[in-house]
Formats: sequence, structure tokens, C-alpha cells
Amino acid sequence: MPADHASRRRALRALLAERDLDALLVTDLLNIRYLTGFTGSNAALLVTADDDANEGRTVISTDGRYVTQVAAQVPDLRAEIARASAAHLVAAATGTPVTWGFESHVVTVDERFRWDGLGSAARFVPAPGLVEELRMVKDEHEVGLLREACAVADRALADLVAAGGLRPGRTEQQVARDLEWRMFEHGADGISFETIVATGENSAIPHHRPTGAVLASGDFVKLDFGAQVGGYHSDMTRTLVLGRAADWQRDLYEVVLTAQRAGREALAPGVECAAVDAAARDVVAAAGHADLFLHGLGHGVGLEIHEAPGIGAAATGTLVAGAAVTVEPGVYFSGRGGVRIEDTLVVREQTPELLTLTDKTLTVV
Amino acid sequence: MPADHASRRRALRALLAERDLDALLVTDLLNIRYLTGFTGSNAALLVTADDDANEGRTVISTDGRYVTQVAAQVPDLRAEIARASAAHLVAAATGTPVTWGFESHVVTVDERFRWDGLGSAARFVPAPGLVEELRMVKDEHEVGLLREACAVADRALADLVAAGGLRPGRTEQQVARDLEWRMFEHGADGISFETIVATGENSAIPHHRPTGAVLASGDFVKLDFGAQVGGYHSDMTRTLVLGRAADWQRDLYEVVLTAQRAGREALAPGVECAAVDAAARDVVAAAGHADLFLHGLGHGVGLEIHEAPGIGAAATGTLVAGAAVTVEPGVYFSGRGGVRIEDTLVVREQTPELLTLTDKTLTVV
Repeated sequence: MPADHASRRRALRALLAERDLDALLVTDLLNIRYLTGFTGSNAALLVTADDDANEGRTVISTDGRYVTQVAAQVPDLRAEIARASAAHLVAAATGTPVTWGFESHVVTVDERFRWDGLGSAARFVPAPGLVEELRMVKDEHEVGLLREACAVADRALADLVAAGGLRPGRTEQQVARDLEWRMFEHGADGISFETIVATGENSAIPHHRPTGAVLASGDFVKLDFGAQVGGYHSDMTRTLVLGRAADWQRDLYEVVLTAQRAGREALAPGVECAAVDAAARDVVAAAGHADLFLHGLGHGVGLEIHEAPGIGAAATGTLVAGAAVTVEPGVYFSGRGGVRIEDTLVVREQTPELLTLTDKTLTVV
Repeated sequence: MPADHASRRRALRALLAERDLDALLVTDLLNIRYLTGFTGSNAALLVTADDDANEGRTVISTDGRYVTQVAAQVPDLRAEIARASAAHLVAAATGTPVTWGFESHVVTVDERFRWDGLGSAARFVPAPGLVEELRMVKDEHEVGLLREACAVADRALADLVAAGGLRPGRTEQQVARDLEWRMFEHGADGISFETIVATGENSAIPHHRPTGAVLASGDFVKLDFGAQVGGYHSDMTRTLVLGRAADWQRDLYEVVLTAQRAGREALAPGVECAAVDAAARDVVAAAGHADLFLHGLGHGVGLEIHEAPGIGAAATGTLVAGAAVTVEPGVYFSGRGGVRIEDTLVVREQTPELLTLTDKTLTVV
């Protein structure tokens, strides 16, 4: 299914009408990619509220490096070539005064001042986060890319385990590079973030950076990693045991797995994000480890690895159908070891759709 | 040699005094890293102009995730813990009115507005690029890291060639991943940018993204890549030939190599950046290829892969001793192939110091 950028721009126009804006000047590159498909490193996009069916006034601007690319990626919009793309669109507004929203959460103070000297007919109103609001609900094209990104990560981990890549004697860094390599081999365009491999007591550090620490029999090994496909990010954590699992490891794993299941099962449209966090956190608290669950339960994922909605104790939002989120409780015994289990899922009207399919029963390798 | 962050802050204070600023509120994370050594993902730093020898009023702020890290990385400054780090420092200014510079090229409009509601005694003046101006001149600690980053890239390429990694039948993507892997094996903390491997006619695309294209005998293979060490980036391009070099390939290579040498030899303190570009470009023009040299000659490199100074035909700056720059002419025959040769060097009072040591005579593998 191809991306329907025109539909996304139509949805944005509805938001502009609600806010009495004549247009939105979009300067965030990911928002531009979302609305047009353009992936270059310099661009601005003006989406006009009252544009007609053929979008004759909506226009994208980019510089000379991207003449061919913008024509190929954005065949349905007029493109204008200018190095200072946003300033070019601002200066081009002449005649009747108009009110433009701009992305005040992204535009720098210097850039905003620059627009005042251009004799533009546009008056500027801060309009932060409008496109991000749309991006929270994934369409089926986006879910398809997320599904593929998650499948790449699943396959890479399966290969790593099958090849004996998780064995005593290897370093965290070697395992991380090996896992990343396998994601590329399975078609990743990039990795989602710096891969976390944490062995033994390092597994108790929530966001550990891989070191030369050597995997040893009896260790927890925590792997938190993801692949990018078509700009969309997967995010998955699995914690395994090397050699033989001790009783405390089995007990700890069971608590986190139960919490993770509770979090997954709480995902539904209309549910408060804080309530999803509580569903998992209550399980951890009942086991006596409330103070060892050191972070929020999850976050939205899409064109960014962290985007709306946040799922934590202090979150204020409510889940909507089509949101793609992680569920990732963790319990960390400092100096001893920790467990985190994380999936990426899509909130659906009925059961949430699980995208990261790697088994979650305690794996001893 | 350890990094001397206190010296860097002293140099910044001299700039503040020139501009009658009581302090600079630093919010760019790379600038904060440069001035303090802190590498966390959230921070603000207030460098006061009239601070005494023990820097009792200069303060760094970060959030609760970094309590341990900030104490370890920045033992010489007072740290205050707050999630909204910049707003915290702004709100803490009470009493006598003060004038603070802020990084208006980095701070968003929303963030700047937020400060107005905090009842602060600080009045804000845009002061873009002050720390970047200091960063242009590398101290010996920084040159040491750049040297190591370049050595990692040199070793990785030598290994790749020695292992037969550049051979007909492999894809550009395989070669890119292989080269990146070898940089990690030699101690890179990360890659500098997405590795470019371009074979055959793809070598005529200046910034080609590796594809499944297969290396073939007779191809030019252009490799543009770098390693990060301690936050500093190396940048090197080599173009090799597979199998046997044709006459046109030898001729083209010789032109670019001569141009690159001319560019390197033009590097000296006090020389206009545009004149360095011209020194190389004139060689290409004399060979009749002026219109096939599609980009500037080079750029500064350090904590960012592209930073000041720019070295191009329209550049306005002048070289200073201690600047680290690339020299990278290229000539591209569309549909046929291209050559780029790039080194990273440090401008010195006498001869520039070459950091990328891989041989530049035409290599046939």
C-alpha cells in the first residue's frame, strides 16, 4: 500500500480550519517527510487551509541539490528551489495579509527574526505540534513499515541466537555489532538507536552502553535494539540467561513478564496512558519492587524512536486507535542484574496488534 | 593530555567581556560538552563573565538521570538538578538585573518565550555562535582525538583491502557494512556519517548511498567514511580501481590528486578560505573539468562532521592555526564514474598536519 500523503495534508487542513489559520509553514523535516514523502535534508512546506482539490497553492521548497529528488518523491505538489527554503516561502507571500501558523517548537529564534525582515504579507502565530498530533495515529502504510522494521529485528535476533552469537567469552560490544550487522543483512536501512547489550550486573543499568565486558555463564544478557525501515523504527528488548538460570533470575523474570503482559492487555482506545503504566507498575509493586522500576512503561514510536504518546505515571494523554507504542517494564537490582521486556504494538479497537514477535518465555542459551 | 575545559571557559569569558554580556546561557549540547566534558542528553550551562578563579557562579544543570554522570564528568563545576534545565537557570536569576547572551541559533521560539514567564532578573540578548567560534581552533587534546579517529579509519581501510574485501561480486552495501565493522573493531565509538561506497558509474554521484550494486572489474570504487573517537569525527575519501585501470581513469585520477595536493599546500594561517578552494579548483579547471567539480573543497571537522570553517568558492572566512579541515576535490563524469580524494588536516603555522595517512597513489586492487 503506497503512502497517501494527500490524505495526511487533508487531515492537517482540518486542524488549520479549527484554529483559523490560513496556512501552516512546516519546517520540521520529519513532518515534511510525513506530509509529502520528501527525504532531503533541507526543505520547507506551506500547507494552505483553503486549498482546492489539486492543491495549487500548497508548495514545497528545497535547494538545488534536490531538484531531481523532489520531483520524484513529491510529484503531486509544486516545488520551488531556494537555498533558504522557509525564508523563500515567507518572502513569496504578498498582497492580502494572511495568518500562518509556524512550528514554534522547532523554529529557532534567529530563523523567526529573519522572517520579519522579508516584507511578507504573512503574520505568524505559534502552532506547535500540529503534525505530531496527526502522526500519533498511524495509517496502514505506516503500520506496514513498522511491522517490517519489527520483523527485521526479530529475524536478526533469531539468527544471532542460532549462530551461537550469545556465548560466554564474547564482549557486549561484539554482540552489539553482530546484532546490528544482522539487521542490515535482513534489510534494515539503519539501526533505530545505539544497540544496548548489557551482561551480568550491567543488566541492572537501564540504558547501558556496550563495553568490553565479557559475557559469562549465569549472566542475564539484556538486548535492547531496533531496525529502521522506510524511516520507521522498531524497538524491542529481550533479556536472556546464559548457561543456567538461578532461582532469583526465574522469579525476577516472571514478575517482569507478568507486568509486561498486564501493560499490553491494558492497551485500548480511550484508556488513559497513566492507567496503562499503572497496570504494569502495580504488578511490580505487588512483588515488592516498586522502587526498582526506574522509568516509564513506554512511548510512541514511528518516524522517531520516541514520540507521542508517552506512557508513564505522570502522562496526561489518552490512547487512540492506531497509536504505535512500546510496553517495556524493567526491574533492576543494582550490582546484581536486571530484566526488561519490551514489545512494540499498535493500539486497535479490539486486541492490540503485536509487532515484535520474538518469544518472551525465559530463554536460556 | 586531558581536556582543559576550564581554559575553554576562560576563552569564552573573554568573548563575553567584549560583548558586555554578564553571562552566556549555553544550551547546545555539543557546546556544553566542549566547555565541560558532559555528554548527557539534557543540560544547560551558565558561564558567567566575571566569575572568579574557582568559578563559584558558573553552573551546569541537568536532570535526575545524570546525577552520577555529571559529578564524574564535571567535577569542577557546581551542578543543579532540574528536568527543565535552562528554565531552571533562568528562574534562579534574582536580584540585580543582568544581561545574558543566549544561543539564538539553537534555542526554539517556544523555549525563548517560556523564559519570559519565570520572573527572572536576566535580560536576554541573542549571541549566536560564540562557542562555535572557539571550537574552530582545536587544542592539542582535540587534535589528539582527531588523530586517533583518523588512524582508526586508516586501519579499517587497510584491513578491508588486505582481507580482499574490495572484490568483484560484493555489493556496495556489503562493503560499507564491512568497513564500518572494522572501524568498530579498531576502537571507534561510532561512525562519523553514513558510509559512502559507490562503484562504477555510481562513483559519479557525489553523495551516493550504498545499494545492492555489485562491484565489477574495471570499476572505480569510491569510499567516503569516518570514525568517531571521543566525540571527534574523522573524514576521508579514497577512490580505487578494481582489476585494471583504463587510461581515462588514470588521467582523471591524476587531475584530482594534483588538485588535492594544491589544496593541501594552500592551507596556512591567514589564507582566505576561498583562496584554498581556488587553488584546487584552478587545477581542475585547467584540465577542462571546471563544471564537473560539483561541490566546495572542504569543511571544518570536530565535534560535528561539518562545522566552521567552510572552504568553498563563496566562503568568506580566513584560516587560523589549529583549524581542522577536509580537502576533498572531486570530478564526476555522469554515467561513467568519478574520483574524489579527501584528507583531514590541521592548519599549522608551518606545514599543515596530515591526519588521514592512507596512501593516495592510485591503488588497483
